[in-house]
Amino acid sequence: MSLHSLIRELRENNGSKIVLLVADGLGGLPMEIGGKTELESAHTPNLDDLVRDGVCGLSTPVLPGIAPGSGPGHLALFGYDPLEWRIGRGVLEALGINFPVSEDDVAIRGNFCTVDANGLIKDRRAGRPSTEKCIAVCNQLKNIKIPGAELFIEPVKEHRFVLVIRAKGLGDAVNDTDPQAVGVKPLVAKGADGPSQKTADLANAFLREAAKMLGNEAGINMATLRGFAKNPAIPTFKDIYGLNALALAVYPMYRGLARLVGMQIGDAGSTLNDQVESLGNAWKDHDFFFLHFKYTDSTGEDGNFPGKVEMIERLDDVIPKIRALKPDVFLVTGDHSTPSKLKGHSWHPVPTILQAASCRTDRVSEFGESQCLAGGLGQFEAKYLMSLAMAHAGRLGKYGA
Amino acid sequence: MSLHSLIRELRENNGSKIVLLVADGLGGLPMEIGGKTELESAHTPNLDDLVRDGVCGLSTPVLPGIAPGSGPGHLALFGYDPLEWRIGRGVLEALGINFPVSEDDVAIRGNFCTVDANGLIKDRRAGRPSTEKCIAVCNQLKNIKIPGAELFIEPVKEHRFVLVIRAKGLGDAVNDTDPQAVGVKPLVAKGADGPSQKTADLANAFLREAAKMLGNEAGINMATLRGFAKNPAIPTFKDIYGLNALALAVYPMYRGLARLVGMQIGDAGSTLNDQVESLGNAWKDHDFFFLHFKYTDSTGEDGNFPGKVEMIERLDDVIPKIRALKPDVFLVTGDHSTPSKLKGHSWHPVPTILQAASCRTDRVSEFGESQCLAGGLGQFEAKYLMSLAMAHAGRLGKYGA
Repeated sequence: MSLHSLIRELRENNGSKIVLLVADGLGGLPMEIGGKTELESAHTPNLDDLVRDGVCGLSTPVLPGIAPGSGPGHLALFGYDPLEWRIGRGVLEALGINFPVSEDDVAIRGNFCTVDANGLIKDRRAGRPSTEKCIAVCNQLKNIKIPGAELFIEPVKEHRFVLVIRAKGLGDAVNDTDPQAVGVKPLVAKGADGPSQKTADLANAFLREAAKMLGNEAGINMATLRGFAKNPAIPTFKDIYGLNALALAVYPMYRGLARLVGMQIGDAGSTLNDQVESLGNAWKDHDFFFLHFKYTDSTGEDGNFPGKVEMIERLDDVIPKIRALKPDVFLVTGDHSTPSKLKGHSWHPVPTILQAASCRTDRVSEFGESQCLAGGLGQFEAKYLMSLAMAHAGRLGKYGA
Repeated sequence: MSLHSLIRELRENNGSKIVLLVADGLGGLPMEIGGKTELESAHTPNLDDLVRDGVCGLSTPVLPGIAPGSGPGHLALFGYDPLEWRIGRGVLEALGINFPVSEDDVAIRGNFCTVDANGLIKDRRAGRPSTEKCIAVCNQLKNIKIPGAELFIEPVKEHRFVLVIRAKGLGDAVNDTDPQAVGVKPLVAKGADGPSQKTADLANAFLREAAKMLGNEAGINMATLRGFAKNPAIPTFKDIYGLNALALAVYPMYRGLARLVGMQIGDAGSTLNDQVESLGNAWKDHDFFFLHFKYTDSTGEDGNFPGKVEMIERLDDVIPKIRALKPDVFLVTGDHSTPSKLKGHSWHPVPTILQAASCRTDRVSEFGESQCLAGGLGQFEAKYLMSLAMAHAGRLGKYGA
């Protein structure tokens, strides 16, 4: 029996409320062996209070040694096995620009490029055009009509765009047309099966029309396609947990991930304080709240250790406002680690707090990687965080008599 | 390869002896944040001695966040994956009255009820009759004969009884006939497949005969059926481990669970001292001994924190008598936590001791939830306790060359 089936069978609705605060890339590393991590260096009196009232641990988003992207990292926190539910690159790109991918869609990453008179690729990124130029070209391409399908062409930035092909019965086992080289022609899209060949035919037809339409453009005169992907038919949050969830995320990618699992998308404003204010306003209307804070990740990606410390302290500032709402379960964690030392996502386990009245409190007294190692949640798979949250919220009945 | 197949392949019989002492619902919670649990509050010099000679940990019976019933909790301790082996409600009810459910049986929970002249349910529990009355009515119903099957009608208590239908080729995918409401007729049993329809037909025939026979009864004049369940064809303890196991349990449900996996049932008397005396008497005749102590759970269920503390101290008293028998492996654990604070089964990990000459002892010095968190067994899935016990008993050979 799967975890989701088990939760569906045991769940109860008692009106309790759960807050999941995700500090993206929260976990870190000391810059020198034996030193302190970003989280351990930060002054976090409010998180430390939360720690003492709760239970801590270190979560493994996917598997030991596996550094996740934002997709798998968040799916795991939402309780979906990130190895079972894969979100293709095309869908992630579409989510990133807030495009609502439906079940009939194949989403594809597009690159504008420059080809020579013989159709050989001269520049795979068409000289990195401005985003304004990208928008203008996309608007032009929106005039392309292909019989049997609806097309959506949406700008991302510079040379990047998203193509969504909408029709019944499409497959996504289609090769990239980007040959990842110059001096050669773009590849022809081919499908590995009947439904995917249908997608490939539509994609090739689009590319032919685009080439015609862009013929006059000096820089942008062709496009390549990558990461053909269908929306995984993922069960919704409501379906699994019976929770009426609200997502408050400033960045589109995270709104997209939340929408993928059926969360309602709230107005997050542009700062953490805006998000917390929206949380208060929506408190009565939902029973699960996902708040996403991006800057612990982006500072880590930049290798900016003091910047990440500062962002963690900014996170700490809003903790009392959230606690004032008296959530039955309050979770603070990250979707993965982003150590400034590594300037990127890593596989290191992620410090996690679960605070609820039914916690078996542990000896952790300050929020940090070393202390969390001795926490009551131990080292656990992130995909179990939601079942723990449901239990502590009093929303899971007993399994078996 | 499954764990059971692996154990079958590697097991050896060296005549060593294993004792599994289950304190039902052993794990607990402090009443106030930062306080002590029941186990931590109890004075347990003998368990503490055992801890220092052994290795400790915290076991998860099913999955993080999942509170198990007695069935899944014990199956996990016996080394069966509780998500793979499910015991239906009817079978558990039959086990609870010590009825030996066979492979050809469908076991069903019955409720006596009262219907009006039109057959609409007036009282789903027939005014909660005395258990004596229940026994008398069951004795009357034992006269019902249905061609093609053998029927067993056994009283439980008050309005509750067990119906077992025995015949070849029965299925258990049958709906409850209890509509869980008054003012409506009991439902007709229907099978989801051929074998289950055969069961449903026999159940409906029984209900018709019962209605005729009970027509004169003022209070009890009808019955409803729930939880149709077959005995899972579970491999025996002997088959998996090659162990000749004896169960010493005062409560019928736990004798039933032990019988389900093929343990022999010993005379447990009515107290823990009786059980330990029986243990000594049977020491030569068996190599595995399951002792079950109920009162750590029942006091927890009652929310009686000091009562649970006292029961743990009573458990502690018998430890030296068990150790005097010099078991090669001595396990002390629970099938789940039952915190007095929550007045019910919970998902919190369960403190566990494994004592054997081959233990890598840890720094745990007193038996309690906080200390066990730092124990050498770590946080582990309860279903692995038996393979650890087999290994420490010298009963498992090497896997691979």
